[in-house]
Amino acid sequence: MPIRFILVAPSHPGNIGSTARAMKTMGLDDLWLVAPTHFPHPEATALASGADDVLGRARVVGTLAEAVADCGWVLGTSARLRTALYWPVLTPREAAPRLLAAAQDAPVAVVFGTERTGLTNEEFERCNALIHIPANPAYESLNLSQAVQILAYELRCAMDLPAPTARRVVPLAPADELSRLNAHLAQVLAAVEFTDRAGGGHLERRFARIFGRAELDRHEVNMLRGLFAATLAKADRRGDAE
Amino acid sequence: MPIRFILVAPSHPGNIGSTARAMKTMGLDDLWLVAPTHFPHPEATALASGADDVLGRARVVGTLAEAVADCGWVLGTSARLRTALYWPVLTPREAAPRLLAAAQDAPVAVVFGTERTGLTNEEFERCNALIHIPANPAYESLNLSQAVQILAYELRCAMDLPAPTARRVVPLAPADELSRLNAHLAQVLAAVEFTDRAGGGHLERRFARIFGRAELDRHEVNMLRGLFAATLAKADRRGDAE
Repeated sequence: MPIRFILVAPSHPGNIGSTARAMKTMGLDDLWLVAPTHFPHPEATALASGADDVLGRARVVGTLAEAVADCGWVLGTSARLRTALYWPVLTPREAAPRLLAAAQDAPVAVVFGTERTGLTNEEFERCNALIHIPANPAYESLNLSQAVQILAYELRCAMDLPAPTARRVVPLAPADELSRLNAHLAQVLAAVEFTDRAGGGHLERRFARIFGRAELDRHEVNMLRGLFAATLAKADRRGDAE
Repeated sequence: MPIRFILVAPSHPGNIGSTARAMKTMGLDDLWLVAPTHFPHPEATALASGADDVLGRARVVGTLAEAVADCGWVLGTSARLRTALYWPVLTPREAAPRLLAAAQDAPVAVVFGTERTGLTNEEFERCNALIHIPANPAYESLNLSQAVQILAYELRCAMDLPAPTARRVVPLAPADELSRLNAHLAQVLAAVEFTDRAGGGHLERRFARIFGRAELDRHEVNMLRGLFAATLAKADRRGDAE
């Protein structure tokens, strides 16, 4: 089952080992590490216990963009609901069957932020939706590997249920196609001189959020790219005519 | 809520601390320790993180019998189903609402065995039923505090808290605004001469689906309208120049 767990900038190697163990207990084995502070590390190996095979196969990459490039559906975990205002928020229980269904078409990913501060806004921009783990409002401080364990457990529970049958007609567009879509839109915004006072990519990020939430399939991305290309061509000819 | 978590003969003080933290994240605070190897211990305190209050109130007793003496319902956790043949076996999800219901009458307990070997047959005799956490049959080796986390999480889910308050920053756009957005887009498609062979509004409907799924708020609709207006203005000037 192509379900990827991605730890972004994990700072404690013990958490990486505990994550591998938590995943393997629930039958998951696709672990990716984005810019870990220490890896490999003896403490990670020690805490992986019998899950050293998962640890040994872990992919290490430099950016979250690389880790999700081929993923059709990307969920970011968020401890605090206030960061979740621009995305749909799912519970682990809601997310699990949807992850399994989406994984039939393309890899899917669950992304966990760095221990102390979680995912950044820029990292959220790479996500289609968020997962919030129910917790004690007075003390939401889940350890990283405990959050991993809960998500892995919910996936395990969902694997035992009959598979949902409502599959997308067309597979979801992977994240790298979305990145190119967003870059293409940035050209359109420039060409039609659509800007806002905030500047600094603010508009682009707002559009990226919309596209992320819309869970675009490959055909839809192509259609949008076609519109952008037509718009650019028109703007271009207009420039020539001046 | 009088829901007691009991660790029988925990050998690693770190697990005691992680257990306190796992419980507190889910709003539980009644921890009992039966004959711990080392307690109190600096490692337990370190791993409890902000849950040192739960650790500080933990009751230490000599036998499981003492720990469950006043409990109305006692569930033992079992990693392996073969030890569970004489008791009803519940999943964590089945157990949680029943624990909550039973806790209205008397304290209830969830009992976790020692790290390496789990609960003994003699300890199972003190239980009303067993809980088996779904796991990978090839690797069921859940860490003690991870098992605690899953049970605590299921109890949290069952407590049926008021719905999370993650409200949208900006209200969703009403349907008539979406209709106007779609009509505006149709003008853009015509102006930039972006068409497909199917015709008959086929493209327009595909865009409308994307906007519908994206759950646009009012500001986002305004932003898109702004882009469309800018695009039309550009295309228009181009027409004048020809």
